[in-house]
Amino acid sequence: MLIIHEVGLRDGLQMETQTVPVQQRLSWIRTLAAAGVDVIQVGSFVHPEKVPQMADTDMLFRELARATLSPRPVLSGLVLNEKGLERGMACGVEMFCMGVSASETHSRKNTGMSIAEATKRITAIAKRAEEEKKRVQVSVQSAFGCGYEGAVPEDRVLGIVQRFLDAGLRTISLADTAGHAMPDQVERMFGAVRALDDQADLACHFHNTYGLGLANVYAAMKAGVNSIESSVAGLGGCPFTKIAGGNVCTEDLVHMLQHMGLRRDISLDRLTAVAQEVSAYFGREMPGVIYRTGPIEAALTH
Amino acid sequence: MLIIHEVGLRDGLQMETQTVPVQQRLSWIRTLAAAGVDVIQVGSFVHPEKVPQMADTDMLFRELARATLSPRPVLSGLVLNEKGLERGMACGVEMFCMGVSASETHSRKNTGMSIAEATKRITAIAKRAEEEKKRVQVSVQSAFGCGYEGAVPEDRVLGIVQRFLDAGLRTISLADTAGHAMPDQVERMFGAVRALDDQADLACHFHNTYGLGLANVYAAMKAGVNSIESSVAGLGGCPFTKIAGGNVCTEDLVHMLQHMGLRRDISLDRLTAVAQEVSAYFGREMPGVIYRTGPIEAALTH
Repeated sequence: MLIIHEVGLRDGLQMETQTVPVQQRLSWIRTLAAAGVDVIQVGSFVHPEKVPQMADTDMLFRELARATLSPRPVLSGLVLNEKGLERGMACGVEMFCMGVSASETHSRKNTGMSIAEATKRITAIAKRAEEEKKRVQVSVQSAFGCGYEGAVPEDRVLGIVQRFLDAGLRTISLADTAGHAMPDQVERMFGAVRALDDQADLACHFHNTYGLGLANVYAAMKAGVNSIESSVAGLGGCPFTKIAGGNVCTEDLVHMLQHMGLRRDISLDRLTAVAQEVSAYFGREMPGVIYRTGPIEAALTH
Repeated sequence: MLIIHEVGLRDGLQMETQTVPVQQRLSWIRTLAAAGVDVIQVGSFVHPEKVPQMADTDMLFRELARATLSPRPVLSGLVLNEKGLERGMACGVEMFCMGVSASETHSRKNTGMSIAEATKRITAIAKRAEEEKKRVQVSVQSAFGCGYEGAVPEDRVLGIVQRFLDAGLRTISLADTAGHAMPDQVERMFGAVRALDDQADLACHFHNTYGLGLANVYAAMKAGVNSIESSVAGLGGCPFTKIAGGNVCTEDLVHMLQHMGLRRDISLDRLTAVAQEVSAYFGREMPGVIYRTGPIEAALTH
């Protein structure tokens, strides 16, 4: 089964200037869970001064531990370091997501560490989480290009993946952090990862900056990816530019999948309802299409 | 080589409420030709009362016959019937495009004919054009779904294609008139056409209504399509709705192809310049992305 991993509440909301109250985020998570989304990324564990929009992540996890979600999704959290892992362990994170950038410049700017140091450190954190019987997904960020460096050598990406595999980490994500991925590259890169380990679980993370979000998802599916990260309403676009650089939009993705005969168990209506609420909350049109147009079936003239 | 067939001046402008003056269209065609676009669809030959925006198509072709275009693209025109063929022959059309809908309802509403009658008549017109040594492209419209009927049986589409092939017509387009195509369907359908004739030239025509335009192009390329129809600025969206239903956008397509190592001979700057002019002319934001964001290279932070 192709897993839908909703990341809008993390990768989307961290881009917004305002912090969304915990109760509002809880309400959206309830509906996303009711829609049948498999994994929901609740937030990240970063220093509250660095990303104040994510300061309430611990509280949100604690609220969710008490909440009745039906069906109950896996609740994931993004961690950047040991401190984040400790916070996540303390508040009930079920799946830990963490990554290393394949761009030296991006890695140093983001973490102050070289790729080699970051790989070593993240691998150790991931192993600790696995020892605690948690699910773990390790990703290579800027895997398809970097906003600072431009092209990123494919061998370097595969080298990081190999390090993860050598450590026994078998759920691997390639993330198009900068939105530069092209579908032929996506198919080739995931094919190369698959060739390193044909039993690994592969995940993808794309932005729709250049209109290629779903093209890249399709290419990733052809290469055998098992899990797709996406954002309700296409959250994640920068509100200050004209660039529609949001994540692949969850309801647009599910609309496509359902017309390909996949994931018909997910409620597109419920996803669309959340997207409409998100758009109303921020008071602007979001990058997603389906929440505005309705599905193909709604466009038929009888 | 993958051929770029620009159709914005036909499929795009016929959707606009205002008629663009011939001199303005000539100016855009000059720049599109200078950009290196292979085929430019100048307009359609329909009754001027039905589509007044296309009333000047004959005049435009006559102006183009005198114009110095460098490089000189193939100039195509869309015809619907014998009268259109005569008009096109008289004014210098180099490539005739014509089609049959795979939806009975669409066919009757659009032409007053059944699919069977329309197939017979269009095939005869196409053969006449070929006898006059013109290039001819025959298409199946609503090949991936219909705005009236919904799903369209794939066998019916392939049946029309077989009739074209039987008549010796070897340049075949599948058009997603309603914007319903899904990438897996695109790959399967073009694969099936390729299986009918592995030497045919295949063309595709997609809209981006549900964010799948470039995904469908990528799928078509994987199935061996030789020619892609697209519209500068993504012209072709309905200006009265929120649905971004334009054609696949030419400059977004070329941006993707160039990053896949293809068609680097085409000037993305010139395409973008036309898209910006089109946006300024109509005084609104167009569906295309790259003319607003610039290419990936422009987004790098140094």
